[in-house]
Amino acid sequence: MAAKDQVKALVFDVFGTVVDWRGSSIRELNAFGNARGLKRDWDQFADDWRGLYQPGMEEVRSGRRPYTILDVLHRESLEKLLDKYEIAGLHEQDIQHLVTIWHRLEPWPDVVEGLTRLKRRYIIGTCSNANIGLAVRMAKHSGLPWDTIVGAEVARAYKPTPQAYIGTAAALNLEPHEVMLVAAHNSDLAAAAKTGFRTAFVARPTEYGPKKKADTAENTNWDVSTDSFNGVADAMGCPRI
Amino acid sequence: MAAKDQVKALVFDVFGTVVDWRGSSIRELNAFGNARGLKRDWDQFADDWRGLYQPGMEEVRSGRRPYTILDVLHRESLEKLLDKYEIAGLHEQDIQHLVTIWHRLEPWPDVVEGLTRLKRRYIIGTCSNANIGLAVRMAKHSGLPWDTIVGAEVARAYKPTPQAYIGTAAALNLEPHEVMLVAAHNSDLAAAAKTGFRTAFVARPTEYGPKKKADTAENTNWDVSTDSFNGVADAMGCPRI
Repeated sequence: MAAKDQVKALVFDVFGTVVDWRGSSIRELNAFGNARGLKRDWDQFADDWRGLYQPGMEEVRSGRRPYTILDVLHRESLEKLLDKYEIAGLHEQDIQHLVTIWHRLEPWPDVVEGLTRLKRRYIIGTCSNANIGLAVRMAKHSGLPWDTIVGAEVARAYKPTPQAYIGTAAALNLEPHEVMLVAAHNSDLAAAAKTGFRTAFVARPTEYGPKKKADTAENTNWDVSTDSFNGVADAMGCPRI
Repeated sequence: MAAKDQVKALVFDVFGTVVDWRGSSIRELNAFGNARGLKRDWDQFADDWRGLYQPGMEEVRSGRRPYTILDVLHRESLEKLLDKYEIAGLHEQDIQHLVTIWHRLEPWPDVVEGLTRLKRRYIIGTCSNANIGLAVRMAKHSGLPWDTIVGAEVARAYKPTPQAYIGTAAALNLEPHEVMLVAAHNSDLAAAAKTGFRTAFVARPTEYGPKKKADTAENTNWDVSTDSFNGVADAMGCPRI
């Protein structure tokens, strides 16, 4: 029996793997800028915002700060960038609109069909650093048919801390080897594999735009390696719709 | 603006409100008994099992025991009943089959249509004492289209402890007055209302079978009072399908 035959649930990294955070946020930031007559380098603003993602979580992972949901971290990093980009005088409603850009990210084109196929045979959920409130609104916005939202907030730990994966499996009444992480990032898959998770790599070559190279599956040994969620569904024996 | 106009999510009690725990478990217990040639009063067995539900959770609510998921409490109470009903020599697989009867409970006939209507306009989730693993399997078994599983395990507190409701609203990025609890039990609604939740009573007159009377909405003042999930959807302005 192949390792993947024991899998009962597939859980998904979200930012970059399920949704095109960069393209979606640049579109929203440009629309906001145009509506307000604010000319800024919004591509760079989006990259800078994402750049503050790991340092924000690291405060929690290191134990220097109690568990704090990602929406709060996104707001704090936004406030730093508004200062850096000299954008002043926004109303609370504008700030909320910008913070919730992360609730309205659009999926890659293969996502909804692939998830729909996988859902018929497996439990499917998130294993993201997104908080529940963020992930559930994104799901409604983009039609992502999760069975449930799990991941960091349920496990009270940010990836790649082992507890983020172990707690996700436990919340589903499963052992780590019964859960497969689907992700576009080798470091995420490597951390999950260390806890016993099965692994599926999905290449998202345009995640970071033209300037930064995305991960490839080269030199790694994941249980599945493909370039779409339909590829994952094929590998996991889910019939085409 | 009516109180219910501020509602952004509806969360549901599950045992008795969404699913007919008594009818479903009696059917499963009879099937198990017939297959094994075990003659017992399975109606009474089901009522006794449910009777051990509150005392099991009370150990956690009182602080005498750390938070323990409902599947574990169900197994412990099952083991007491196997002793009481003199059923010995079951294999681990049989015990698992019996414990997971609670994963396979069937919904009342109006549930899936009502939830489907509500889901188009609101976030819908569980606010049950069921653990995530139980609730997600029940959802897949019975086609319950939750946006996500919240409730006791996410809040780390059993209803009717206030934290069970407050933690559920917080996990959805909502204030208590933006969340409506839908339940067939006045005590659950009363506890939720004290934390600021909006309330919808759904009568389930046959929940306890012929011997014990179910709750009615008399002498209470809930925001919505009806006898089906379609009635909740009507009251919340959701178009018919």
